[in-house]
Amino acid sequence: MNPTPIPTPPIRPSVLALTAYVPGEQRPVPNLVKLNTNENPYPPSPAVAAALSAFPAAALARYPDPTCTALRHRLAELHGCSPENIIVGNGSDEVLRLATRAFTVPGGSIATFDPSYSLYPVLAAAEELTTRRVPLAPGFAWADPSPADLADATLFFLTNPNAPTGVLYPRAEIKTLCESFPGTVLIDEAYADFATGPDSGSWASYAAASANTIVCRTLSKSHSLAGLRLGYLVGPRPLIDAVCKLKDSYNIDALAQAIALAALSDLAPMQANTERIRATRESTRAALEARGWSVVPSQSNFLFAAPSPSAPPAAEIFQSLREKNILVRYFPGPRTGDHLRITIGTDDQMSTLLAALPA
Amino acid sequence: MNPTPIPTPPIRPSVLALTAYVPGEQRPVPNLVKLNTNENPYPPSPAVAAALSAFPAAALARYPDPTCTALRHRLAELHGCSPENIIVGNGSDEVLRLATRAFTVPGGSIATFDPSYSLYPVLAAAEELTTRRVPLAPGFAWADPSPADLADATLFFLTNPNAPTGVLYPRAEIKTLCESFPGTVLIDEAYADFATGPDSGSWASYAAASANTIVCRTLSKSHSLAGLRLGYLVGPRPLIDAVCKLKDSYNIDALAQAIALAALSDLAPMQANTERIRATRESTRAALEARGWSVVPSQSNFLFAAPSPSAPPAAEIFQSLREKNILVRYFPGPRTGDHLRITIGTDDQMSTLLAALPA
Repeated sequence: MNPTPIPTPPIRPSVLALTAYVPGEQRPVPNLVKLNTNENPYPPSPAVAAALSAFPAAALARYPDPTCTALRHRLAELHGCSPENIIVGNGSDEVLRLATRAFTVPGGSIATFDPSYSLYPVLAAAEELTTRRVPLAPGFAWADPSPADLADATLFFLTNPNAPTGVLYPRAEIKTLCESFPGTVLIDEAYADFATGPDSGSWASYAAASANTIVCRTLSKSHSLAGLRLGYLVGPRPLIDAVCKLKDSYNIDALAQAIALAALSDLAPMQANTERIRATRESTRAALEARGWSVVPSQSNFLFAAPSPSAPPAAEIFQSLREKNILVRYFPGPRTGDHLRITIGTDDQMSTLLAALPA
Repeated sequence: MNPTPIPTPPIRPSVLALTAYVPGEQRPVPNLVKLNTNENPYPPSPAVAAALSAFPAAALARYPDPTCTALRHRLAELHGCSPENIIVGNGSDEVLRLATRAFTVPGGSIATFDPSYSLYPVLAAAEELTTRRVPLAPGFAWADPSPADLADATLFFLTNPNAPTGVLYPRAEIKTLCESFPGTVLIDEAYADFATGPDSGSWASYAAASANTIVCRTLSKSHSLAGLRLGYLVGPRPLIDAVCKLKDSYNIDALAQAIALAALSDLAPMQANTERIRATRESTRAALEARGWSVVPSQSNFLFAAPSPSAPPAAEIFQSLREKNILVRYFPGPRTGDHLRITIGTDDQMSTLLAALPA
């Protein structure tokens, strides 16, 4: 079979121009100290293993429940809302992408803080949208977005606690933004389970009762289920309904539904793990500060830290750690390039990291 | 917390206007005879159960391989191409959607035969594209698309064997289309494993070596893994690369990768099941024809059949079967509304169906 050599057929120009999101490196090396993608160093709830071994392989012959009924009921119970306020996604990646599509107009724009999760501008570019970046205040603290910053944006992505900084924003500021932004505010709570104190606590029930606020959550971090791909949105029904129209019919496989439900029905192991991670976070922060590093106060499962003035630059430390099979994350750029983002692993892993850092 | 009652924020007009794809009913009723979504009545390979019980729950704490390396290598082996010719999707739904985006231009159009898989126009509408429908010849046979039919379409969706008709198209006609269409031809082979004879056999290796042809396949039907959500595209690298840029980073969970690899490494059970289904298909066809039904010759795991002139209309039979907990599929419309699409189940299920049909 010799197809006539015709030229490459049309590819959408915005796709050709697109730089795909680059996830943190997944290197199959034994004894790797992997502190680069904010994974949880502890295993998921034992209920997950039980659900896995109880799952009948023969059931995979049937399509899964297209609307994740049982899972949405459990999530509604946890967040004090109705199942109709929830859509489940193949990781939060999927629902963030769908929201980017649903809550913008052709040729429009999204807004987000700078720095924030680097996926949002990629999602915007894939939808042929502009990204309006609102600079954070010094120390990566909240800054009120000005109308000029926001321009024509109809969707504001707010990561809380923020990534890659770990900063949890004041509730009052978030509330003001939700009440004043003339579009949808999406609060991405990927790391919210690691936060404590007066500004912590999910915005999910607020979102469900609101007109324009949506919360995104994931089981990847606190539930130790990054490998499962399970995220969800909570929000007012008109917005959730719009996102539902865009999702693939059977977007969550039958196993993932069963396993996620098991994890969400046994929260104590997750809570114990987040508690341990918080303790390790604070001891690691103290150790770094003792060496003269500047560490942003974190309410997440990672630290955003700048090496001491006497140490080599962040980019160099990143490379030298990598050569020792210790992976952390480095984001080049004016606001982030002098920091490293370090996921909190076990106490042993953090000791290995600290021992490998320049004195 | 009382959000100020502001109006619903902007939702993309095309989303508001969108009618989502309606999948076949999934009704949780015991003893349901479910012949409406082309699922396989037999369980997946025993290797699937083995992979499931061997999977360590703790591994779910890590992100999955974002590019499905092992799985793509196995698929490349099966299709005689390189892993770079393959992208794996969360069901073929995902990769069909991504192709719709990648191989069209803003405000452009797709083309497909009428009737064909009813998802394509939904995917097009979600991307703000027009669908050009090329009417099939009488008996749902191949018809050469005219330039007027195709208009500005840059992507042709060709289901082979076709759904909901079951017709396998002549190889020569498909080759001519691939060689002459000034855009991408996507051959959707969801049902190809059920086909036999001179026109059967995958177009995957042809696609990998072509400039403009892509094949889509799924493990949902022949591999009895509809619940797993695993589909893939095979095609030339520039086209596959374009689709890869648009996918969610970690689109296939770790379990699905392991299970799909197991299924694809043990093909004999799948082949035995497809053989059984073909036999049941032909006996069911004979039984329907003996009752005066008109049955389209099928190379798939379903039959598209019109009741005998003396029987009630298809829509009525669909309803009366449903009341007896026998689900088949009914597509209203001028070209399909006088037929039922009947998935091939076990011999027992088909006997139950035949007994429930009007005499």
